[in-house]
Amino acid sequence: MLSQRRAERFFTHDLAQFLPHLSVDCVVFGFHNSDLKLLLHKWKHLNRWSLPGGYVRRREALDAAAHRILHERTGLKRIHLRQFHAFGDLRRKEGMLRELYDTVGIEVPRNSWLLHRVVSIGYYALVDFRKVRPKIDYFSDACSWHPVDDRPPLAFDHGRIVNLALEALQAGLQSPAAGANLLPERFTMSELQRLHEAILGRSLDRRNFQKRMLERGGLARLTERRIGGAHRAPYLYRFKGRRAKP
Amino acid sequence: MLSQRRAERFFTHDLAQFLPHLSVDCVVFGFHNSDLKLLLHKWKHLNRWSLPGGYVRRREALDAAAHRILHERTGLKRIHLRQFHAFGDLRRKEGMLRELYDTVGIEVPRNSWLLHRVVSIGYYALVDFRKVRPKIDYFSDACSWHPVDDRPPLAFDHGRIVNLALEALQAGLQSPAAGANLLPERFTMSELQRLHEAILGRSLDRRNFQKRMLERGGLARLTERRIGGAHRAPYLYRFKGRRAKP
Repeated sequence: MLSQRRAERFFTHDLAQFLPHLSVDCVVFGFHNSDLKLLLHKWKHLNRWSLPGGYVRRREALDAAAHRILHERTGLKRIHLRQFHAFGDLRRKEGMLRELYDTVGIEVPRNSWLLHRVVSIGYYALVDFRKVRPKIDYFSDACSWHPVDDRPPLAFDHGRIVNLALEALQAGLQSPAAGANLLPERFTMSELQRLHEAILGRSLDRRNFQKRMLERGGLARLTERRIGGAHRAPYLYRFKGRRAKP
Repeated sequence: MLSQRRAERFFTHDLAQFLPHLSVDCVVFGFHNSDLKLLLHKWKHLNRWSLPGGYVRRREALDAAAHRILHERTGLKRIHLRQFHAFGDLRRKEGMLRELYDTVGIEVPRNSWLLHRVVSIGYYALVDFRKVRPKIDYFSDACSWHPVDDRPPLAFDHGRIVNLALEALQAGLQSPAAGANLLPERFTMSELQRLHEAILGRSLDRRNFQKRMLERGGLARLTERRIGGAHRAPYLYRFKGRRAKP
């Protein structure tokens, strides 16, 4: 966690290590209790939530920057990340960042690019909810999961970024392995259906859903069944190409 | 067209007007004689073709920069543009740009960001082939159309940029108004089919294609037919929501 001194040093020295006017913002999706959830952090003092993000080092590929930023925030490596849009409108952040730095009492040099325009590359990440250990940093006092359809108001243009990430996720449901990164390795058909419903924001017919999923291939039915429910034990599935660990 | 003196001034003075380390590259698609075509320009002396592109002004939205760059290159305004990917790998351009500036005899200051890393935002544009008036500039000695599947080798990572634009265009064929910006206002079913075939790179069954297009809506059949062919005059269509001009 960044100390005040370390945070000040960041603006006066370390910032030169990064490409100016460029950032990465990450929409981290997890799936838990039939809910699609977002990982958000809360800016200290400001009481506003925002997406995990950061800057790109001068000798760091864009994708590598996104992986590093998410590793710092979640503890996870090898996250399934997908770039979906670059946000390049004017006045995306500058007003609020000024306010933020004032509030935490950090003096940012007036000619710093941080106080001017930033183009942000949006990535979305699909993670296994149970494996994430959310972390705060010097600028935030909370980092936690929020249901996508019951999320707090977001800072900057992050609400728009989430909406575009959701659209990309919805479009991706056409692919046979869609959702593989949001589910545990073995899952029931109704868990898969609830994931699709959460992403689409509407309920689906059970029989049609099952028929469509089985017809398009990509799923392997396992020999064992889920044990312990009140109903008949349902079949377990996994995505083909993902080896089921013993 | 930029003179040598103007080009030199660009590097010593005007470059400060742009966001450093950021560019826009445009994949311009046109459709002509059943071929999907790309608008490319050729670097002077280097004998290499590349995509139209440019830099982003400090007070200019990303989309506005793409429109300006394409207006300069094609003479068109209000082009149908779609951002599809940001290219942020290391060493995308630097080697070749150095070579280029050496060849045209322009001295670029050694600490200029132009000689270092550039992240490029990729846009694809769908234009009415007949309306484009390709223009060269100081750095190019040709600007012309090339069939997508018979294109010359491209400079930098522009071949990869074209491939990703094509994938985005293919995915977009699902939408009911797909191709509206590549066709004239009125078109026959077989012209629409040839467009889909050119984008997909494979032939389609005529009856299935017609059935699918009519079922999914979005097309309006006009009362007049195409006159002048050797065969029975085919029906003309237009995309709904686009008013047919008299």
